[in-house]
Amino acid sequence: MYYVFMLGPAGSGKSFLAMAFHNWLEEHGLTTTVVNLDPAADWLPYTPDVDIRNYVTVDDVMKRYNLGPNGALIASVDLMLNYVNDLVEEINEEKPNYVIVDTPGQLEVFAFRKAGPIIIDSLTRGYKSVVLFLVESQMVLKPATLIPLTILSLATAFSHRKPQLSVITKIDLLSKEEYTQIAKIIENPSDFIITLRSSEQIILSEFSFENSYTFVEKIVENYLENAVMVSALTGDGIDELYAEVQRVFAGGEDFYTEEPSEIL
Amino acid sequence: MYYVFMLGPAGSGKSFLAMAFHNWLEEHGLTTTVVNLDPAADWLPYTPDVDIRNYVTVDDVMKRYNLGPNGALIASVDLMLNYVNDLVEEINEEKPNYVIVDTPGQLEVFAFRKAGPIIIDSLTRGYKSVVLFLVESQMVLKPATLIPLTILSLATAFSHRKPQLSVITKIDLLSKEEYTQIAKIIENPSDFIITLRSSEQIILSEFSFENSYTFVEKIVENYLENAVMVSALTGDGIDELYAEVQRVFAGGEDFYTEEPSEIL
Repeated sequence: MYYVFMLGPAGSGKSFLAMAFHNWLEEHGLTTTVVNLDPAADWLPYTPDVDIRNYVTVDDVMKRYNLGPNGALIASVDLMLNYVNDLVEEINEEKPNYVIVDTPGQLEVFAFRKAGPIIIDSLTRGYKSVVLFLVESQMVLKPATLIPLTILSLATAFSHRKPQLSVITKIDLLSKEEYTQIAKIIENPSDFIITLRSSEQIILSEFSFENSYTFVEKIVENYLENAVMVSALTGDGIDELYAEVQRVFAGGEDFYTEEPSEIL
Repeated sequence: MYYVFMLGPAGSGKSFLAMAFHNWLEEHGLTTTVVNLDPAADWLPYTPDVDIRNYVTVDDVMKRYNLGPNGALIASVDLMLNYVNDLVEEINEEKPNYVIVDTPGQLEVFAFRKAGPIIIDSLTRGYKSVVLFLVESQMVLKPATLIPLTILSLATAFSHRKPQLSVITKIDLLSKEEYTQIAKIIENPSDFIITLRSSEQIILSEFSFENSYTFVEKIVENYLENAVMVSALTGDGIDELYAEVQRVFAGGEDFYTEEPSEIL
């Protein structure tokens, strides 16, 4: 079994990519289990095989503990720890080639509190895993949103400490010009970084960060140079995403992992 | 008017610090307006003078647009943009010495989407401002939580681009040993950084970040060397926090801003 986690800020397209990647793998002869870890999910574009909502939901937690939405979100993610073993058992019964894990809508409650990293560790014990960090393509085009999000991506990597890939989502919403622009940026991040420098987007107040200059350049460059552009709706880029995931599982070597598929 | 924003992940103690800082300022003869910007706030430890919930609440958005908690949280923060002028008008009517702004429980919906930075800019136009980035003291003691949170703090600074101070909260929950430990870390971050290095907490997979080593050391050090330890419950550290806020408003020079208080 290989584990692929969908992580990213609210609205970055985690659930739709879970669906699209699942469909792609199944179409290529690989069995897949999709796990929903969002106790606040109202509607999902796929039917989860394993679902945390069978154990915890934000609605129940709001009612039972008389909490508002903020408190209930935190409490329900923390409560998920009680059911990790049940999830592991359910997944082991299926023993698929791939386990795709969709995570809570709010990245923050999962990535920056104790529960999230523990859940990731417990699920993946003994198995190879990769985390996909999703950023909406519209956010990539504006330095004001790109820079904080790439730094957020780094923060997340230090939280779960698994290999992490950058995924730029919703490319079907881009104009042709915007698509070409992002593709160029990914191919040659350093040219783009120079434009950042001239826009002074990378200079912070002295109280916030000395030498933010070189720092942020490296963070943005690192995010971009590993990025894959995908659309969950059209399926564009999913084959490239699969190849990148393989590259991680193969440990950076130039060969593919042994897949039980006759197609691949 | 000076603006002081409370930012930090869910559960970091933003609302309680808003209350404590407000009380401290009033006790020292300075007028203060407290603004609640959390449309999902269920209960607050203070009575807000200006309250976004008079315009938008997550509950209403859930019902009106038939959304789950995830979608409603995003939508209600985005909807806040429609009422910024009303908030500015309300604040201008009060014209206090200090405006303390409490932000949404979930940092992510506010800091990493378009609305948050726009709201901060609109409120502070023409006025000096500082952002306090709160981290719970218990999170500081563990490299596994400290590192991601300090990087998150950097990401936030690049989102709002205002001067930002590090605030370590809830020090009343620390044992005497833990308190001394954190105080030492703040006084001399480089000693602590060396222990991080030996714990290998700062090395990431090659897929996540090359040279994460020197990178993270600098981010953690930067967070810690500007940090103030406070307790909103006991009031410990609030005077030091006031001094740091003053230092920012004075532009880093070694003098205090002109305060209309006879006490200070």
